[in-house]
Amino acid sequence: MTTQLYDLTVPAFLRGFHAMSGFLAKGEAFAAEKGIDPAELLATRLVEDMAPLTGQVQRASDAAKFVAVRLGGVENVPMADEEASFAELQERIAKTVAFLKSVPREAIDGKEAATVTITTPRTSFEFTGIDYATQFALPNFYFHVTTAYAILRHKGVPIGKMDFLGGI
Amino acid sequence: MTTQLYDLTVPAFLRGFHAMSGFLAKGEAFAAEKGIDPAELLATRLVEDMAPLTGQVQRASDAAKFVAVRLGGVENVPMADEEASFAELQERIAKTVAFLKSVPREAIDGKEAATVTITTPRTSFEFTGIDYATQFALPNFYFHVTTAYAILRHKGVPIGKMDFLGGI
Repeated sequence: MTTQLYDLTVPAFLRGFHAMSGFLAKGEAFAAEKGIDPAELLATRLVEDMAPLTGQVQRASDAAKFVAVRLGGVENVPMADEEASFAELQERIAKTVAFLKSVPREAIDGKEAATVTITTPRTSFEFTGIDYATQFALPNFYFHVTTAYAILRHKGVPIGKMDFLGGI
Repeated sequence: MTTQLYDLTVPAFLRGFHAMSGFLAKGEAFAAEKGIDPAELLATRLVEDMAPLTGQVQRASDAAKFVAVRLGGVENVPMADEEASFAELQERIAKTVAFLKSVPREAIDGKEAATVTITTPRTSFEFTGIDYATQFALPNFYFHVTTAYAILRHKGVPIGKMDFLGGI
């Protein structure tokens, strides 16, 4: 047995977004219960020069979308990074999930040897499709989902490991 | 093209440990430079009831080792969770990497449909081999690598995203 590229990527993102949507909802409920301004929670960073909670959700969204775009060759659905409430972050997640679900598996499967180039302001990296998925996109996606979780934990939101690992 | 189970798991762990070893070294250097007791950094938690830096490294080690044990059917190399210095954490990583490298790919490949049962104090989960790898073990591994990174960032260690994403 072996695994198709679609199955390595899209279902993992869907699981991650499902978990993130769940723990964000607990964060919103916690703010309401404790009388904390939700905007304060959304703006929380683990350190000054790291993206806040809102940014972590946006970057997780981008990390997943780019797999569909770079491997699947589908057109990106740009999202403006203007989310300013928990409801808008949930909407961002829902739009990202809908986009991912719209990508046919045939667009991604078989792209293991495709060339993917990532360009950053400082440098660029070239990957094969499979290395891009397993060595860049998935770690990058989990980085942002975990950091969103870590920010909420740091602020005292009562979530636990199962909120991160929980299934679809 | 498709991907073998070994290629989805072991190389991703090796990349993660390489990155973790690198950013832990920067954490140790930062402590020395700033006159911070390394033990303080190792004991730092993002919140009181979350594992400290040392625990995050130990759990990343376990998450990876268990894939070799549960999918590869090889005997675990128990590690006592007694690391008390950066040097000992580096040794833990090196031992984990050596263990992972000792597992022949033939032991893991083809186990996509194997049954994997995870038992926790409260419940148990049953997975197929492929779901265990992609929906549980990899997210769990990245959770702990990211949280170790986040703790160091939170304490001001000068590391950046490339220290997390950097290759082997």
